[in-house]
Parts: sequence; C-alpha cells; structure tokens
Amino acid sequence: MTDTSFLGALLSADQVSTTTADRDHHGRDWGTPPEEASPPDVVVWPESTAEVADVLAAATERGIPVTPFAAGTGIEGNAVPTRGGISLDLTRMDAVGEVRPADRQIDVEPGVVGAAVDEAVAAHGLFFPPLPTSGDMATVGGMIATNASGKRTVKYGKVGDWVREIEVVLADGSVLTAGTRAAKSSSGYDLRSLIVGSEGTLGVVTRATLALAGRPEQTRVGRATFSTLADATDAAADVVVSGVDVSAVELVDALSARMVNDYVGSDLPEGPTLFLEFQADHGVDEEVEFCRRVLDAHDPTAVLLGSEAAGTDPWEPRRELADAVRAYYPDRRSLHAGDVAVPLGSFSTLVERIHELSEEYGIPLPTFGHAGDGNVHFDVLVDPTDESAVEDAAAVYEEIVTTGIDLGGTATGEHGIGRGKREFMLAEHGETGVETMRAIKTALDPSGTLNPGKIFP
Amino acid sequence: MTDTSFLGALLSADQVSTTTADRDHHGRDWGTPPEEASPPDVVVWPESTAEVADVLAAATERGIPVTPFAAGTGIEGNAVPTRGGISLDLTRMDAVGEVRPADRQIDVEPGVVGAAVDEAVAAHGLFFPPLPTSGDMATVGGMIATNASGKRTVKYGKVGDWVREIEVVLADGSVLTAGTRAAKSSSGYDLRSLIVGSEGTLGVVTRATLALAGRPEQTRVGRATFSTLADATDAAADVVVSGVDVSAVELVDALSARMVNDYVGSDLPEGPTLFLEFQADHGVDEEVEFCRRVLDAHDPTAVLLGSEAAGTDPWEPRRELADAVRAYYPDRRSLHAGDVAVPLGSFSTLVERIHELSEEYGIPLPTFGHAGDGNVHFDVLVDPTDESAVEDAAAVYEEIVTTGIDLGGTATGEHGIGRGKREFMLAEHGETGVETMRAIKTALDPSGTLNPGKIFP
Repeated sequence: MTDTSFLGALLSADQVSTTTADRDHHGRDWGTPPEEASPPDVVVWPESTAEVADVLAAATERGIPVTPFAAGTGIEGNAVPTRGGISLDLTRMDAVGEVRPADRQIDVEPGVVGAAVDEAVAAHGLFFPPLPTSGDMATVGGMIATNASGKRTVKYGKVGDWVREIEVVLADGSVLTAGTRAAKSSSGYDLRSLIVGSEGTLGVVTRATLALAGRPEQTRVGRATFSTLADATDAAADVVVSGVDVSAVELVDALSARMVNDYVGSDLPEGPTLFLEFQADHGVDEEVEFCRRVLDAHDPTAVLLGSEAAGTDPWEPRRELADAVRAYYPDRRSLHAGDVAVPLGSFSTLVERIHELSEEYGIPLPTFGHAGDGNVHFDVLVDPTDESAVEDAAAVYEEIVTTGIDLGGTATGEHGIGRGKREFMLAEHGETGVETMRAIKTALDPSGTLNPGKIFP
Repeated sequence: MTDTSFLGALLSADQVSTTTADRDHHGRDWGTPPEEASPPDVVVWPESTAEVADVLAAATERGIPVTPFAAGTGIEGNAVPTRGGISLDLTRMDAVGEVRPADRQIDVEPGVVGAAVDEAVAAHGLFFPPLPTSGDMATVGGMIATNASGKRTVKYGKVGDWVREIEVVLADGSVLTAGTRAAKSSSGYDLRSLIVGSEGTLGVVTRATLALAGRPEQTRVGRATFSTLADATDAAADVVVSGVDVSAVELVDALSARMVNDYVGSDLPEGPTLFLEFQADHGVDEEVEFCRRVLDAHDPTAVLLGSEAAGTDPWEPRRELADAVRAYYPDRRSLHAGDVAVPLGSFSTLVERIHELSEEYGIPLPTFGHAGDGNVHFDVLVDPTDESAVEDAAAVYEEIVTTGIDLGGTATGEHGIGRGKREFMLAEHGETGVETMRAIKTALDPSGTLNPGKIFP
C-alpha cells in the first residue's frame, strides 16, 4: 500500500481516513457492480482550494494517483480509482455564494448539490436549467466533470453551457481561473470548455460561477402514448424540428412503463410514451396546442396535455425508473447502462435497433431517455451467472453504442467515458482525436496524477 | 525571402501566388493601419482538405509559418502574418453541403460566407442564428476561428454554440474530426470548443457541421431613446434580466447616432438609443408590450416599438456605423477599435467609464454594441500625426480594456486576440492561464507553424 502519511502534515486528522468503510464507499459509484469495486488507499476531504492544491502538488511529487470524488452518482466509474492512491472527496467544499441577480449568476463550490443551487436562487426568481435527473444528489463538481445534462437540456442546453468561470487546481498544485463572467469571450483558448467534461483528468474544479435563467411564470406538462415505438420517437423528433417551445421531451418505452407501474402501482398506459413539459412567461397554452397538432400527426393512442394533465407529476416515472428496472426481474441485473446520443433525425433508427436487438437476443432492454436531444438510455438485463447471457449482453451493448457512433453520434451524451466506455473512444474520435486528447493530457498532467485509467483506451 | 518553391509540387500554378497585389491583400485585415501591413511570402489557395494537409505538413517540415486567411474581415490582425511565410487562403473551399432538415444541420466548407449559409437553409424554413454583423462578407472559417457572435447572440448564443462537428487539419498534416453531430456529448475532451476561437493557431478547420434553428414566424423591431447613457444601458440590462424574449438589444450612443445621421442623412434621435428585435412563432406582440413596460421604467424620451416601427430598418445604423465613424472627423482615425464584454450587471459601469475617459482626454469615443450581452464596441478617434494624442489614445484604450477585465469580463467578446490584444492576456488569464494555453499550443503544434505571433503575449 502506498505511503500516504505525508497527508497528515497537510490536513487535520478528521480530513484523512484509511478506514475500510470510507475506502469502500469511495471505491464504487452507482454503476459499479460489487466485483468491480476498486477502493483508494486513502480518502481526504479538503476544505479549501489551498488544501486541494497542497494535496495535488504533494501527490504529483510522489507519483501517487488522485481521483476526485463527490456524490458518487456517476455510472461509468468516473470517480472510482483504478490504481488506489488518494480519493479526493470534495463534499466538504459546499459553500453556496451570494446570488448576483443583476448578472444572473451564482458562485458555488464543487461539493454543492444541484438542488441546493436551485434553492438558493429560487428566491430571486431564478433557476439553474440544466440540472440532471439526479440533481437532488449529484454535485456541481460532478456535473461539470461529466458535462451533465437533464430533461430541460432540449430547451436550455447542457451544464457546460451554464458554466461561466471556474477555478481549477492543476496536477502540480497551480491554480487556474478559466472562462470569464461575461456572457461571451473570444480571448485565447477556451480552457473552461476543455475542463468541463474532462472527468477530473486535467484538473480539479474548486469554484464555479454558474449562469442562471429567469424562472418561467407558466409551466404545463403532459404525455402522449403511441401504438408503436417508431411513432413515439418520430413524434419526439418532430416536436423539436417543428420548433415547439418545449422544455422536456422524455421517452419511456412500453417495457419501462410496465416496470414503473409494477414498482409504484401507477397506471401509466403501457405503450411507448412521451412525457412533455412547456415553460414560458406567457403563451404557454398556445404552445401546448401547437404541440398537440404535431403529436396528432403521429396517431397517438392517448394524449393528456396542458389543463388535462394538471395535477399529474410527469416525472414520477423517470424518477422511479432506475429502481423499477432493478426490481422487475429478480434474477437479472443491468450489466450495461447505456447513454448514447445521435443527431435527431437518426433517433428513431437507433431506438428501433435497440428493440430489434432485444428481440434477436431475447434480452430485455428497457429504453428511455431525453428524446428531444436524441439521447437514449437503456439497460441490458441478463442473469449475471449465465455466462453466455453475459457475453450476449456485451455484444448487444457494443452494437448499440457502435450504431450510435456510426449514425454520427456519440458514445455518451451525458455520463462521460469513465472506465466503462474507453473501448469506444477510437471508434468515435479516431486515432488523431484520441492522440490529440492524449497530448493535452500529457501537457497538463505529465505525471499522470489525475484520475488515471479513465477516458483513454 | 523563404524558399517556397516546394509548393509547386503540391498545388497547381493557379493556386500559388507571389505577386505583390496578392501578398499585399493578405498582409492586412479590416483593422490594419497601412503602416502595420505585413504580407506573407506566398499565398496559396487549397481546394481540398488533402491539399491543406499537404501544405501544412510540408511547411512544418521546413519551419515555415502558415497563417490561415479568408475574407480578411477581422480587426485584430488575426489573419495577418507576423513572420511572412504562407498565407493559406481558404476562400476556394466554399462548398455548401446538403441541408439535413431532420437534424437541423448543414455541412459547409470554411470559405463559405455567412450569407450563403442563410440562403441555403432559408428554403427549409431554417436559419443560422449567430451570424455576426459582418455576416454578408465574413466566412464560416473566420467566424469559427474567432468564436464570432452577432446581434442575435443575446437570444441564441455564439457561433461556437452552433458548431457541431468540425474537420481540422493539424500542423503536421494529420486530420482531426472534433465534436459530434449529436446535440450533446460527454465523450472525451471537448476538442471542438478548444479549436473554436483558437484563431488558426492550433489547426485549420476544413469542414464544419452547423446546427440551425427554425426561422421564427413573427419578427418585430423597435428602438428606444433615453436622456442619459446610464438610462439606456440600465434599460438594456433590465430587458435581459427581466426575461424579455428579445432577439437583439443593440446600443448606439448619442455620438454614434449623430455620425450615422450625418453619413446617411437619417433622422435618428441623437441620444443614447437601444435598437431591439423580437422573434417568435407566436405571442411576439405580448413580448413587445412586456418590453415596453420594462423600458418605460427607465424614462425613455422616444419609443418606437412593434407596429409603430413597422417598415423601419433598425439595423441600418449598425450597418453604416463603421463607415460613418470613419467619415465623421476627416482628421482623425480610429487607432483602437474596442470589443470588451463584461457581466451584464457591470455593463453600465463600463460604458460610463468610456464616456468619462472621452471627457477627461478630449478624445471622441463613439460607443455602441451588443448591450444585451454586455459587449461594448468603441473607436478611439485621434489625429494620427499628433504624437501626444496617439499616446493618449493608447492610454485610454488600455484603461477601458483593463476596466472590463477588472469587472470580471474579457478583453474581447467576439473579435479575438489576434496580435492587437496580446498585451491583455496576462491580466485576463493570469500566468497559469497563459502557461496552460501555451502548453496546449506546444503539444499540438510543437514547431509553431500555425499563425505565429498571435494570442500569446
């Protein structure tokens, strides 16, 4: 085991732990199966930028890997150490700074949970639009590290689009300020966007200025169910392409709907369904009716929109889905959780292919996701003790991700590469792409201190 | 003079020129005063990605600098060689690819002029929202190189926000595909955003997939004049912060308005004026009235909005402004053209400071720009033969840019650093920021082939 006693000189006793419980907690994320847990040698909880810098400088000097960690809600092992070393837990850096309403901005530390941002800015009539579905638990640091996104990304964009200025500690302990608080800039290289989505492999974000939007005065919700999956996915794309001002277009396929009904006792129509949300300061009902006409062209079997849907909670199915999927087949486990995004015009093709593969292999593949962004999620559910099923699961997963890449899309729309998707990097980015990323990694972190074993194939 | 005879083996005779006329044309941009013209040794017009790659590989091998060039509409010397070498003129790579309406995307080559993009997509009911004011002449390649933006950026974002996938030739001739055609991605480092705004110092963009928006069905325009500059700038910020769905909020100060009236014989009110545009598929008149109430709170002296302004062309002043400024004082020239952006809440402070400096130094500083983005433009007008005035002009310019940076903003919102703003890089990005950018430059272009003498102080 690595000698990490030097940490005692940098941090207080209550900021360092080598207990099995702490190491285990930092050796997995939401997506880590028990057999792939990989704990650090030591966990530290820095409480300031200076402490993060001290730990990084000392670790780099000693050749000890450092893996940033916060809520652990990733699913690609993004925050799971691959070679022991130090888990840098940022949850104690959770200060919520003052809201600046005249700039529509707030400064926060990386350990702040998404929901806390929303709470702090609500009193000013503002909100942070790109919160992921896991925003009640996920931290700002983690969202930035994976360039996360959520159900409202279709209207408002990704987390990265709402990050203005970030403070970043580099591997050698130097502190970088990247980006600007201005709404736009053409000044030098866009280091902010380079750090966003780099999964803690280039630096550790210790402060972020987030942009905010005005909280819309009107919100309407609804859902539409279709007889075929193709009708549902075509309708989702059509809603966006037609220019409906929609703030969410989420797909839940028939199997996923059945799983939710089974789990929470709801009575969702058990067909491919779109869940929709509309937000505006005025005219939202006109938008709902415009959307109804677009949906109607795809022969929905049931539509509940606007005032008809008042009082319903359209996000319950999506919130419950992860647990519902887990509960439905007692003998099966999701060996691969997918997150593939394609250009909108290819969304139907990708989703159809997922269902074809489910048929071909006899593997349940509940399929859902951010249809308006062309971003699909799915689970590959097999009996983990059945070797041939496990092999099939891997083949299915690979084919789906590869199909997405071949359609001009990306291996991951919002979860990051972590250690789970490294094998797809070459297919997506080509040799020049991967080598260029590697050259940047080497330039910024020559010793390879930061989060080794991630992103690169 | 550098021996560039090797180019004859790579390109046809009509793709290479060393004539004085061609070299002179490529030795300046819109912002280059005659005494700062700096021509290349040779100009080449590649017609394919392979030719760009051949030229770059051969130049790197021989240590010859290559400076990408297209319309030459930059104002910071971004495309002006600093050490001779090769000017790589991309205007012959101007193919406009097929529009993909289902994806709302189009593929174009870098030499395509902004207006040609708009023309190609209009038939599909689409448009390319972030076109700069110079979009009739500026090319897509140049817009990407500077992360340009325009009057509609307040609603739709910058050019970089609308670039999906780019093909980039690196200094060694290898070809990188960066980004994805999907609406979002968390896959590896965001090389696309790194290239956007890098002013041709990291690679040469040879193809771009651009995202498009639906052409709004309703457009309204208008203007509001105020008795004080502070009222105008406060009103501009208030319009945005109040959440008015505005697609342009442009400021023209009293002096600029007078210059335009003088130049085109118009009768604009000669006070600080905001020009506004509203675009939506419906409800645009409600938005105009909402905006009127916000403006009214700042005591405008004249308001012409919506139906009252029908038939007026609110963009004439902005279009004519560059020429009007040049014509107004026969003995003065703009020695410094500014482009500073600050957080919205500091926009009034910055613009006030510009006017104070104009008073203090007795130098006319016509001030205008994208008020809704906190992005100001100004010209520092002095007699270029008056040495003390020239010194004052430099001091005024430096103080304005530094004030912008001190207010949390950026030295340039949309024109790039080029060679004109290198002195501000350290103040804005700090030593760690500049060194990090330099490390990336060295990693991607170790020989320093691409556009030397730009960006870095």
